[in-house]
Amino acid sequence: MTSAVAFDLDALVARIRPVSEEARTAARAALDAKTKPRGSLGALEELAVRVAGIRWDAAPGRLAPAIVLAAADHGYARQGVSAYPPEVTGQMLANFLAGGAAVNVLTREAGARLVVVDAGVLEPVADPAVRPLRLGAGTEDASRGPAMTREQALHGLAGGAALAEELAAEGVGVLAVGDMGIGNTTAAAALAAALLPAEPWAVCGRGTGVDDVGLERKVAVVGRALAVNRAALGDPVGALAAVGGFELAVLAGVCLGGAAAGCVVLLDGFPTGAAALVAARIAPAAGARMVAGHRSPEPGHALVLAELGLRPLLDLGLRLGEGSGAALALPLVGAALAVLADMATFADAGVTDAGR
Amino acid sequence: MTSAVAFDLDALVARIRPVSEEARTAARAALDAKTKPRGSLGALEELAVRVAGIRWDAAPGRLAPAIVLAAADHGYARQGVSAYPPEVTGQMLANFLAGGAAVNVLTREAGARLVVVDAGVLEPVADPAVRPLRLGAGTEDASRGPAMTREQALHGLAGGAALAEELAAEGVGVLAVGDMGIGNTTAAAALAAALLPAEPWAVCGRGTGVDDVGLERKVAVVGRALAVNRAALGDPVGALAAVGGFELAVLAGVCLGGAAAGCVVLLDGFPTGAAALVAARIAPAAGARMVAGHRSPEPGHALVLAELGLRPLLDLGLRLGEGSGAALALPLVGAALAVLADMATFADAGVTDAGR
Repeated sequence: MTSAVAFDLDALVARIRPVSEEARTAARAALDAKTKPRGSLGALEELAVRVAGIRWDAAPGRLAPAIVLAAADHGYARQGVSAYPPEVTGQMLANFLAGGAAVNVLTREAGARLVVVDAGVLEPVADPAVRPLRLGAGTEDASRGPAMTREQALHGLAGGAALAEELAAEGVGVLAVGDMGIGNTTAAAALAAALLPAEPWAVCGRGTGVDDVGLERKVAVVGRALAVNRAALGDPVGALAAVGGFELAVLAGVCLGGAAAGCVVLLDGFPTGAAALVAARIAPAAGARMVAGHRSPEPGHALVLAELGLRPLLDLGLRLGEGSGAALALPLVGAALAVLADMATFADAGVTDAGR
Repeated sequence: MTSAVAFDLDALVARIRPVSEEARTAARAALDAKTKPRGSLGALEELAVRVAGIRWDAAPGRLAPAIVLAAADHGYARQGVSAYPPEVTGQMLANFLAGGAAVNVLTREAGARLVVVDAGVLEPVADPAVRPLRLGAGTEDASRGPAMTREQALHGLAGGAALAEELAAEGVGVLAVGDMGIGNTTAAAALAAALLPAEPWAVCGRGTGVDDVGLERKVAVVGRALAVNRAALGDPVGALAAVGGFELAVLAGVCLGGAAAGCVVLLDGFPTGAAALVAARIAPAAGARMVAGHRSPEPGHALVLAELGLRPLLDLGLRLGEGSGAALALPLVGAALAVLADMATFADAGVTDAGR
């Protein structure tokens, strides 16, 4: 992990430009000239304008999409906060590599590229298709001490950012993020509670299906993690290290690197939202480059999206993670850009414009 | 219009089978064996199960989509209920045929076929690509008497149903509906008010952008249409003829024919919702074969969807019509079917199943 020492987080943050108000204004004007009542495509038009601003281009055309799916294990899982045992993280990582998981199916449907990252599952998977950014073999139990060191967190941020910048250099314009990790809605809840801030009960939900007793345990675990690590929660990297997770560190890095490279950063559910909140606290300009794919039923997710100022594109009750909600939102991004690129204007089509 | 005389509406209704509970149960079981927590894909899973029931097939595979977009003019438009002049209907019909409208762009994005129907615009468009199902040159002003005759309404139902059955025979499995007609949210509001029933103010909205004065006028026009035609509103075909529109008649026929032919009938906004409500009142079994693509901001739309028992897939503030919201929902239908067809099971993938 010597590379973390060489990582200059401030330089990365400095590379994140604001969005272009000129491109937004020009895209809005272009949409207003199209053969439809002004604003009648609702959130789709707002999305097209947002992408134009992010890309500094009023006519961004089509953008190639990729999903970075990072998996890791969590010390929290030893506290019985999930309906599933920890070995499922590694089993699902193998499933992603074999192409059988929901995100594989949805990524294929969306015509996107899927990049699977091992950010630190308990047992490494020996497969050349996996991108190794291992920060360890699962985090420590944050209810008893820090989940990871600050160096590990910085290493994750650096690795995620480098991956995002590499993908952008290869032509990716929409960079979606997805997560896998048994116990990671607990890590996301602890991070959200630390950063918003919020009470543990306000950010803990049932994850992938924990029962009432499990939910009470989860709230208590988050409370203990916050109490034990209180001194470390004052800055976003400190909070990430103390109560977060390896895949959340990598994904926060992907958000920062994607923002620096001019990508549209497309979020999935609660864990990616918590990672995005870390990124936006490190670099407020990164927040303007994010798009929320969907709203999950996790109570903390709505709070995080509100804090990021994002209105999600979909609200389908998805609680899977993996980037599944981001993958489902990708066709809407494509549609918004196609409307901006391809629709006729009132003048082109000889249609009377009522000017509304 | 002699063909209307030969049209046997009862025979069409009798061809609409209930959905298959066995196929639904088997699809639910298949989804529960996939490598994801039970139900964690939320509304996407409900959609897959619904389609399985409609198709009488627990493994319906991929379904070819088509959008039937019907355009017509409305006598209501003479009452100043729209922000746009009536000639825009015909101009937009030409735009659909030239490929420059929003629905053209969105249909191409979704890989769907677009069938453009002239159900009765003021001036016919001379283009072999348009499907002529003209019931007249615009409806009469329903605030002064019936919009059309019962024979015209039946002719529209017959033509729409025949078109849907023809498309199904050509392999279409998802039949989406779209509308174009200056003044048609007024027709939809009057139909919804008659059938739900509801007060005019509860179902009238701003359509594509009418101002406060226009909205008041719209509410008054709907009230007069209901009062003038009161005696005709007792049955759905009577209401359709008295206060509806030509494209709504054709689209109600498409809903019935699509349901009879085993298609998934995918709805767009308020006018298609009103047409679907006519279809469901004529043939209650048709309702179970519908899927709501999106929720529009028109207040009557939410009431119609609730009456049909449908929860929309998208809620993006779309108020364009044309089938744009249905086109945007098509990738979700495709994704739901891909999940059902392609995801690995816990047993396939060697993933531990917590059984939740």
